[in-house]
Amino acid sequence: MSGVEALLRWLDLAGIAVFAASGALVASRKQLDAVGFIVIAAVTGFGGGTVRDLLLGRTPVFWLRDPALLAVASAVAVLVFFTAHRVENRFRALLWADAVGLSLFAVLGAEIALIAGAPPWAATLLGVATATFGGVLRDVICNEIPLLLRKEIYALAALAGAATFVLLRMQGIWRDPALLAGMAACFSIRAAAILRGWSLPAYRARPGRHHPDRD
Amino acid sequence: MSGVEALLRWLDLAGIAVFAASGALVASRKQLDAVGFIVIAAVTGFGGGTVRDLLLGRTPVFWLRDPALLAVASAVAVLVFFTAHRVENRFRALLWADAVGLSLFAVLGAEIALIAGAPPWAATLLGVATATFGGVLRDVICNEIPLLLRKEIYALAALAGAATFVLLRMQGIWRDPALLAGMAACFSIRAAAILRGWSLPAYRARPGRHHPDRD
Amino acid sequence: MSGVEALLRWLDLAGIAVFAASGALVASRKQLDAVGFIVIAAVTGFGGGTVRDLLLGRTPVFWLRDPALLAVASAVAVLVFFTAHRVENRFRALLWADAVGLSLFAVLGAEIALIAGAPPWAATLLGVATATFGGVLRDVICNEIPLLLRKEIYALAALAGAATFVLLRMQGIWRDPALLAGMAACFSIRAAAILRGWSLPAYRARPGRHHPDRD
Repeated sequence: MSGVEALLRWLDLAGIAVFAASGALVASRKQLDAVGFIVIAAVTGFGGGTVRDLLLGRTPVFWLRDPALLAVASAVAVLVFFTAHRVENRFRALLWADAVGLSLFAVLGAEIALIAGAPPWAATLLGVATATFGGVLRDVICNEIPLLLRKEIYALAALAGAATFVLLRMQGIWRDPALLAGMAACFSIRAAAILRGWSLPAYRARPGRHHPDRD
Repeated sequence: MSGVEALLRWLDLAGIAVFAASGALVASRKQLDAVGFIVIAAVTGFGGGTVRDLLLGRTPVFWLRDPALLAVASAVAVLVFFTAHRVENRFRALLWADAVGLSLFAVLGAEIALIAGAPPWAATLLGVATATFGGVLRDVICNEIPLLLRKEIYALAALAGAATFVLLRMQGIWRDPALLAGMAACFSIRAAAILRGWSLPAYRARPGRHHPDRD
Repeated sequence: MSGVEALLRWLDLAGIAVFAASGALVASRKQLDAVGFIVIAAVTGFGGGTVRDLLLGRTPVFWLRDPALLAVASAVAVLVFFTAHRVENRFRALLWADAVGLSLFAVLGAEIALIAGAPPWAATLLGVATATFGGVLRDVICNEIPLLLRKEIYALAALAGAATFVLLRMQGIWRDPALLAGMAACFSIRAAAILRGWSLPAYRARPGRHHPDRD
């Protein structure tokens, strides 16, 4: 395994750990039991890649082929179960770790889709799905409207990262610099959004207008 | 492309546009941001066909093979984002457009399943799933109990349309008249339900009886 | 068909009937219409096996290949629609029937995954998923936090049953005794949990500590 391969392997496990931790923190807010922590951690960590694999027809899906991934997600879930109440300021730390996971998964997800034969526009989208749908499934199962749909420059950062990677690859740029450039694009946009509080305008009904319910 | 083929292509895009619009209107009620509008519009427009393709094993799923579909859904979502507050009576217009989409997807979904080798009863069901599961996913993601399960002659109209098409095809009727007959069956039942306010009786607990919660 | 095969066929249909009934009872609490009863009953009865088949790439999924399964789920849904308000103590009866379904599906799901070539650890997990994800999908569609994640020794019983079966098969034990031993392991743990009110400790925030919302 080359140095870059080894680094990516570690980043991949780190990305799963981070997303698993975000899932376990939502489980702590919902006061689930230990099984619930593990299920939500796994869904958050693997959900995006699972959706990508299913849409492409890459089965068995990736986490059924590598027990280390599930071991990492479960260990993180158990750790959070026993320590979540002790950690102050954990949401801020998580926010930054999550930005690393987002950057990594957007780019690696797009690469897997390209290798599976998806056209560039579809590979870009599947990169975004890999990076974001774990969180969507986490929120749907926990009965919340997905954070992705309500807040901030999140999906857009993933889109920028995946698109940068795919465009560079289409231009014949080697894989490793393209991966790094894509991750940098995603991470810098997301970091700016966190630091400056950027967010997309939400839809607001105009005052004085009523929105009759459809039913 | 024959005249009927061209017509079906246009109707197919129109069906996606209509379902995307219904998704974007739910997004406007939930006050999502622009990314949320596009995601919900795409889920509503493609969700039913995606479920059909996954259950049958037709991968990559259909919308990954034709960028025009995503372009239509995104354009509709953006349009609704900027105009929804201006349109009066938009729910009534949508109701009729939705009935056209329902009729079209029920019949075309059943045809795709037949071509993929599904037996007639399964093709009928997959037609219903194609026509209705986009709306189910829209409601699940937006944290509402699916409209499909609560109200009106909706799934039944799709069932009538898909069954009519499949039965006629089994009798050796040509494709185009079978498609038209199926769409007509679905649309007329749905139209009658809209105009006369038909709905299925919902389950009601009898007065004086208690329903102890299961947990 | 041997005696054991015939028995398993009947238990399989019985398991689907039981899970379908649990889905229809949730539909009755949500006051859905008859279509809603059938959809939720089918989702609960087939959901776990469908997730297993999709993750493994076994398509078309199992219930598209055998119309008897859907007939059973629909018949149960209609029966519950007309009788649910009459039955006293139905939740207790259901609890025991559900324990039988859980035991059966955990073991049979693991076997199907082994036959499809999954490694032992993955087959064990897919057995748990087969037994539990129908209920998860039922609760997600009905807009509740899944019972699985909140309560009791449920997933753990399925895990014990699937693991027992897989371990015995790895040791070269014949299929029928391994199936029976796995089902016995799952059922006895679940039965003890029901009778003694065992449950897993849920996560609780310590008093005096605040859990600031993430957003």
